[in-house]
Amino acid sequence: DNYFKIAVLPGDGIGPEIIGESIKILDAIAEAFQCKFHFEYGLIGAEAIFKTGNPLPEETLKICKESDAVLFGAIGDPVFDNNPEAKVRPEQGLLKLRKELGLFANIRPLKTYASLIDKSPLKREIIEGADIQIFRELVSGIYFGEKFTDPEGAYAYDVCKYSREDIIPIAHMAFQEAQKRKKKLTLIDKANVLDTSRLWRKTCQEIAPEYPDVELDYMFVDNAAMQLILNPKHFDVIVTENMFGDIISDEASVIGGSIGLLPSASVGEKNALFEPIHGSYPQAKGKGIANPVASILSVAMMLDHLGLKTAAEKLRQSVEHAIENKYVTIDLNSKQYYSTSEVGSFIADHI
Amino acid sequence: DNYFKIAVLPGDGIGPEIIGESIKILDAIAEAFQCKFHFEYGLIGAEAIFKTGNPLPEETLKICKESDAVLFGAIGDPVFDNNPEAKVRPEQGLLKLRKELGLFANIRPLKTYASLIDKSPLKREIIEGADIQIFRELVSGIYFGEKFTDPEGAYAYDVCKYSREDIIPIAHMAFQEAQKRKKKLTLIDKANVLDTSRLWRKTCQEIAPEYPDVELDYMFVDNAAMQLILNPKHFDVIVTENMFGDIISDEASVIGGSIGLLPSASVGEKNALFEPIHGSYPQAKGKGIANPVASILSVAMMLDHLGLKTAAEKLRQSVEHAIENKYVTIDLNSKQYYSTSEVGSFIADHI
Ligand SMILES: CC(C)[C@H](C(=O)O)[C@@H](O)C(=O)O
Ligand SMILES: CC(C)[C@H](C(=O)O)[C@@H](O)C(=O)O
Repeated sequence: DNYFKIAVLPGDGIGPEIIGESIKILDAIAEAFQCKFHFEYGLIGAEAIFKTGNPLPEETLKICKESDAVLFGAIGDPVFDNNPEAKVRPEQGLLKLRKELGLFANIRPLKTYASLIDKSPLKREIIEGADIQIFRELVSGIYFGEKFTDPEGAYAYDVCKYSREDIIPIAHMAFQEAQKRKKKLTLIDKANVLDTSRLWRKTCQEIAPEYPDVELDYMFVDNAAMQLILNPKHFDVIVTENMFGDIISDEASVIGGSIGLLPSASVGEKNALFEPIHGSYPQAKGKGIANPVASILSVAMMLDHLGLKTAAEKLRQSVEHAIENKYVTIDLNSKQYYSTSEVGSFIADHI
Repeated sequence: DNYFKIAVLPGDGIGPEIIGESIKILDAIAEAFQCKFHFEYGLIGAEAIFKTGNPLPEETLKICKESDAVLFGAIGDPVFDNNPEAKVRPEQGLLKLRKELGLFANIRPLKTYASLIDKSPLKREIIEGADIQIFRELVSGIYFGEKFTDPEGAYAYDVCKYSREDIIPIAHMAFQEAQKRKKKLTLIDKANVLDTSRLWRKTCQEIAPEYPDVELDYMFVDNAAMQLILNPKHFDVIVTENMFGDIISDEASVIGGSIGLLPSASVGEKNALFEPIHGSYPQAKGKGIANPVASILSVAMMLDHLGLKTAAEKLRQSVEHAIENKYVTIDLNSKQYYSTSEVGSFIADHI
């Protein structure tokens, strides 16, 4: 049926503002496409620490587990960043949520918009037509391995661990996506140095014969960080481990000209979470200047996930319509710009 | 006195060709500046594996330890890259050499050349005037932590470990360099997730008061990967751990327009090694198309290190003279270009 339970986690910084616009969008979708969204709000991140001492309260986790999809804003607060001694941190909330919901694949589509191409620091001929989909492993690796800091503060370590079971599902997902696209999959790793990278390479090599129409190639992460800028059109689908994916996907955001445009989906077997790739951007909080598009396009990925393909399509068209008509926030046009909520309303009205 | 023992390690791929040009340069320097270089050649990398089974033969290590400086070409061979099961790998030779010589700091200066600025994938206004010096920790972290692959191949891990002692010397070096420059030091880490990153942040914070004229700031590696492209002029001196430094410094090479121009120095308490940041580029081997400039500018860093400042200055001028006169290899000008050895000779003749 057409009734969906959405867990809404606005989080920190500009999170609440952009999520406000996404709710506006969902209301418009509900009306236009005869469906119903039931929203349940949860605390997470710094906000949750300030109010409950816990970056991921049990109640929030419960709401998420029972939801059809999680709509996530952003987390992070400079108060914690500059204090290496802090025991509880906003990021722990997001990481624990990813782990508890088993969101093993973070999917980030990247493309360019004709009217924004000149916003990119890269030259037009380098990026025009670039279209990349990144699959980042999200619940293992150095993020979740054992961590230790000696009580005297003399040393510390973080363990990067991967099992074949961690790699197989996301590798299949990436191969399948490549089949639907240009049939090219690039594994980014550091197999000339790391044992875990060699396990990634071996596992992907073993799976490859099941996808004979997909060309699998490998690139060392240092070289990939360079090639993404020199020649982004080289790439179609990318698959990589957690830490490399974090770095590479933020880097790749420059291709589109603004991180404020980029959505992501984090999916697991049972649950799925949708969030902009930008962070909490605390400097912009409350100023009404945050770009809501990344969160709104995350809603489009959520609609796809819920099976509402027509609504997702319509929403993407409405976003493109706003961008082509220069109905954008200050990050995209410093001469003529609109507020977070004006842009959200413009898109909602077009639906 | 003016007698120097140079260990020469050409290595794999285009290594021997570019090292040949660097020797040409050193011969010209010796003549022009009344000094003497004694060259001792050593095997390393894939070449050493093919000839001796060992990527770093004892003999090579001995030559390096007894040298005033090591001149290094490149290592790496696709035969090993695509075989996750290979037990012996060329890279092990370089990594062991770095460790044995205690080369804890890899220093990579990055700048733009007026006549090459349009070669960069980045827009002129983004990069013009960018001038960054990266200090990458080189003998610890995940490169050298415990590694393990389960004999059944079910899982693997790599340990990233840092002690305060690993961080302190390179932090001081970076602070001191910042003092000589624009007095701005950026620590790149992932302190919102990793214990080792928090140790880096804490250690740098503790050292900072000794350099009150230097402004220390922090940036998460994902954000840094983005900011390096959006706004490279934000950065002056960067200090970071081994793996992040590997990724970030290759990425930053796009600023200058060609990785074929970028030198590096790896220094320790007793020894120092000079190498281009590009790799062995096996596809170009033997074709006479490799750009020798990165290796030649590494020689300039070596001359500085040996106290031959005037010679280093003259060499840098000669390189700039060649570039400004479009005496360059095919990577920098596909219409009118010269061979590896023509470019080397042109620079040598100018000295
Ligand atoms: C906030 C942080 C822990 C997170 C990460 O590193 O995964 C963020 O950078 C992201 O990419 O979603
Ligand atoms: C060849 C490889 C082991 C090496 C590294 O990762 O350190 C190289 O990429 C470099 O940066 O010198």
